[in-house]
Amino acid sequence: MNLKRYLPILQWAPSYGRDQATSDLVAAVIVTVMLIPQSLAYALLAGLPAQVGLYASILPLVIYAVFGTSRTLSVGPVAVASLMTAAALAPLAEAGTAEYLAGAILLAVMSGLMLTLMGVLRLGFLANFLSHPVISGFITASGIVIAASQLKHLFGIQANGHNLLDIGHSLLVSLGNTNLPTLLIGGGALMFLLWSRRYLKPVLHRLGLAPRAADILTKTAPILAVLVTALVAWALRLDEQGVRLVDEVPSGLPSFTMPSLDLGLWSQLAVSALLISVVGFVESVSVGQTLAAKRRQRIDPDQELIGLGTANLGSGLSGGMPVTGGFSRSVVNFDAGAETPAAGAYTAVGIALATLFLTPAIAWLPQATLAATIIVAVITLIDLPALGRTFRYSRTDFGAMLATIVLTLAHSVEAGIIAGVALSIGLFLYRTSRPHSAVVGRVPGTEHFRNVLRHEVELCPKVTFLRVDESLYFANARFLEETVMDLVTREPELTDLVLVCPAVNLIDASALESLEAINERLRDAGVRLHFSEIKGPVMDRLKGTELLEHLGGRIFLSTYEAWQALTGRAAVAA
Amino acid sequence: MNLKRYLPILQWAPSYGRDQATSDLVAAVIVTVMLIPQSLAYALLAGLPAQVGLYASILPLVIYAVFGTSRTLSVGPVAVASLMTAAALAPLAEAGTAEYLAGAILLAVMSGLMLTLMGVLRLGFLANFLSHPVISGFITASGIVIAASQLKHLFGIQANGHNLLDIGHSLLVSLGNTNLPTLLIGGGALMFLLWSRRYLKPVLHRLGLAPRAADILTKTAPILAVLVTALVAWALRLDEQGVRLVDEVPSGLPSFTMPSLDLGLWSQLAVSALLISVVGFVESVSVGQTLAAKRRQRIDPDQELIGLGTANLGSGLSGGMPVTGGFSRSVVNFDAGAETPAAGAYTAVGIALATLFLTPAIAWLPQATLAATIIVAVITLIDLPALGRTFRYSRTDFGAMLATIVLTLAHSVEAGIIAGVALSIGLFLYRTSRPHSAVVGRVPGTEHFRNVLRHEVELCPKVTFLRVDESLYFANARFLEETVMDLVTREPELTDLVLVCPAVNLIDASALESLEAINERLRDAGVRLHFSEIKGPVMDRLKGTELLEHLGGRIFLSTYEAWQALTGRAAVAA
Repeated sequence: MNLKRYLPILQWAPSYGRDQATSDLVAAVIVTVMLIPQSLAYALLAGLPAQVGLYASILPLVIYAVFGTSRTLSVGPVAVASLMTAAALAPLAEAGTAEYLAGAILLAVMSGLMLTLMGVLRLGFLANFLSHPVISGFITASGIVIAASQLKHLFGIQANGHNLLDIGHSLLVSLGNTNLPTLLIGGGALMFLLWSRRYLKPVLHRLGLAPRAADILTKTAPILAVLVTALVAWALRLDEQGVRLVDEVPSGLPSFTMPSLDLGLWSQLAVSALLISVVGFVESVSVGQTLAAKRRQRIDPDQELIGLGTANLGSGLSGGMPVTGGFSRSVVNFDAGAETPAAGAYTAVGIALATLFLTPAIAWLPQATLAATIIVAVITLIDLPALGRTFRYSRTDFGAMLATIVLTLAHSVEAGIIAGVALSIGLFLYRTSRPHSAVVGRVPGTEHFRNVLRHEVELCPKVTFLRVDESLYFANARFLEETVMDLVTREPELTDLVLVCPAVNLIDASALESLEAINERLRDAGVRLHFSEIKGPVMDRLKGTELLEHLGGRIFLSTYEAWQALTGRAAVAA
Repeated sequence: MNLKRYLPILQWAPSYGRDQATSDLVAAVIVTVMLIPQSLAYALLAGLPAQVGLYASILPLVIYAVFGTSRTLSVGPVAVASLMTAAALAPLAEAGTAEYLAGAILLAVMSGLMLTLMGVLRLGFLANFLSHPVISGFITASGIVIAASQLKHLFGIQANGHNLLDIGHSLLVSLGNTNLPTLLIGGGALMFLLWSRRYLKPVLHRLGLAPRAADILTKTAPILAVLVTALVAWALRLDEQGVRLVDEVPSGLPSFTMPSLDLGLWSQLAVSALLISVVGFVESVSVGQTLAAKRRQRIDPDQELIGLGTANLGSGLSGGMPVTGGFSRSVVNFDAGAETPAAGAYTAVGIALATLFLTPAIAWLPQATLAATIIVAVITLIDLPALGRTFRYSRTDFGAMLATIVLTLAHSVEAGIIAGVALSIGLFLYRTSRPHSAVVGRVPGTEHFRNVLRHEVELCPKVTFLRVDESLYFANARFLEETVMDLVTREPELTDLVLVCPAVNLIDASALESLEAINERLRDAGVRLHFSEIKGPVMDRLKGTELLEHLGGRIFLSTYEAWQALTGRAAVAA
């Protein structure tokens, strides 16, 4: 049982049959065709040699097939993690140098170790600290930064920076150096890809293809752009016209790579590795859960950490970059009919064949084509309407989202995400620090109690019933003290105060101290403190505390019981 | 009205009469006698010249009388803030130098600016981030560190450090150099003070004093120790025996001091100033609230920030150290009958007289006596039983408390408090990230629904009712997704799922996204999602969201209504 949990392959491999193998193989062929340009492009985005993207799409897929719990997730390099990799390495080394590559490999290894450790310690809940508005804002802003960063390849100019301000500034400065052949190739590829996303499917459909086949074929349009532009570049010797091509790619499978053991480098990259890990994990789990639900399957987030962690370890140790479960590739895998993680392993074989036999052709590929595929891919990440939706739903969530977007665009991806997390935690605590509470009175003739401000209710001048609509904990304990003491100062006749607690799910030690303080202060002021409707688990804890020992009043099971006992009035028969 | 809020003196001064003046004057005399040794001692603890403690007990008291809302709080140097001051300044300068003094003055000014700004912006809720276990653990650990740091004065040896390990180590190394006359003076004073705390009151009582008079006189015992030991030191010329005395104290009132404008120093001290401000504010507010409640008065925490902030500004600008509302001095002020903040202003006059006329005598005071008064004062801060109480009540709160204590003792006061705050926020989020939820069924023959695991209830195999006992927000949104999908995977017959939400006080944007994802995944799995008992404010927000537009099922006001509609079964007449 336990072995099956840590090696999910044992859950499906023993009953793996010919039908599943056929489905998986078909899906693998389609995903391979889609992955080749994507892997090259994301390596370029991360500032790495093109083959690093291919290496990161071989061993990690095999490892995930063994340790991952999603049947259809496809792991490999993804856009946001590639941008984060580039941003993390920029201060350390020049892109293209050996130190830069060593840094990327170390990021994959560290991210692998962190994710695996978090999985073993069952720390998957840490990903919850990334609230949805923060993740959504972060991905939108990252998409914008990524698209902007690729414009230099489309124009054939130099530009750098890892935020919108720097990129925009350096683009404007060198726009005069635009290389026309590059712009034609890149612009053409971009146009074709944008057109194909919208119109290729209907066209194929009209040509007689089944809807599903048309859908899948549309998603492999980038390979067509890659093939055509490489052919054009080769035929016209475009490199002599100043069109930058993908550098010569070494042929052959990746080999074992020893990560750097420089402790200074480890500590410099630690925060980046953690952020890449957590962001990648969140993206991966949400894709995995969405796909699993469609077939009433499920994934285990803590085991997913181990699956992604070992995949990243495998990536780094075979000379690759950080990987995670990507959205578009997983959806293609799913739609193409993949049934088990074996599809991923077959895809790895496909990519391995590409590194063995396609590398001479890849050398002729214009970087502008890859930039176009990246831009088209990240446009789908940019979700500006989410800003409006979030604004309408909640101003506080919108605040966290906006801070994340602004800081990611204007400063850096890391600043954006850290500020977003800090702000969303702070705003949540602030929101619960002023909980809703209401003085309630009896709805005449019933056993029900309602807010005096909203309903016509019966009151008793000497007894006040205060309902608290939030768990009581350190952030709101003092607020409760203030609310209660305000009430007592305002009502000099008061002799009894009943705290009505049906929505109190937790009373922590701070709130307990506050309640003890309230009890003592009320006693000093000649008022007895009572409770009603305390939940079972909360009551279990309160037993044996000084609060109950020294309580001036009583604990009532129901508010009506308190009403009867303290006001001496019975309910009129309902 | 608004003027009265920002200048609370206007609330009481217009009706100030002779009776109140008499009460305030009596209290002021008693507090002055108590404050003289205390002020000197806390200056010593902070590594500052003795007169700085006196200066901090003049102008701040007058300013607090104008801006403070507590009638009986007494502000001035306190033990914990003095320790924090010493710890903050240690890396910057040698105690006794002009730079060190300038740092202390700047800390008071910065703390004053921060508190005033927080008050104007109404940011008093920030103090809530210091949970009770963290404050309690921090004060206990600070008390231990302070007591340990004073032992060197008792033994007349050199020792340094701002945590227990460093202090303990350097004490052990130089214990051989103990100065016997110093130990006799200091040990004698310590013994006398400890004895007087326990036995002086009964003795005075037996001598015929009224209980209240005996109580107050007992609290002024330190002044007796100070007088006697200073007299002995003068008579026996103990300075020639190696007994360290308080250095010569300049006579006269404090004068205006310009704080340092070195921006580097400002940024180095910013975190320390913030921590001193927040810790001081929390201590002050809790003392103030306790005393105010005894007379059915109240304090305004946001105005208290302004009161304490301006008091600190006054302290810094008149050459003093950080101040806050102290526990022991405020209780003495209250017990001695102070009725208005005018008592504080009279006390300021008393201390001012002391700086004018008592300074020649103070020069003869042995430092060991002051160390003894500090040790006796901080012993009351050390609350070890709180560890056991917190452990029994809540393991998570205990964890935050223990981390605070261990880090404060072993590393530094700042590390202790920062770790405690981070841990208590983290543990709270963790605790709410796995909320209690229960599948509920109908109590036969009623309209009530209870946990199936605890009660005999009716169920329906195709309809599951899931009650969630926590607000839904980013930290637990994914947990809910997992819980629901688990349920659906386990029950293949399921067609309807009802989320029962009476304890859901908030649904943030992350939880909304999760609910939308749950709704879609359930639809893919052929299950309809319904809600029941959504609270009014929560429902108001949900209106107009995509969740309600795309909801597979319905919204029911009561769970029983959902039961009737979905199971087709009516309740048996009750």
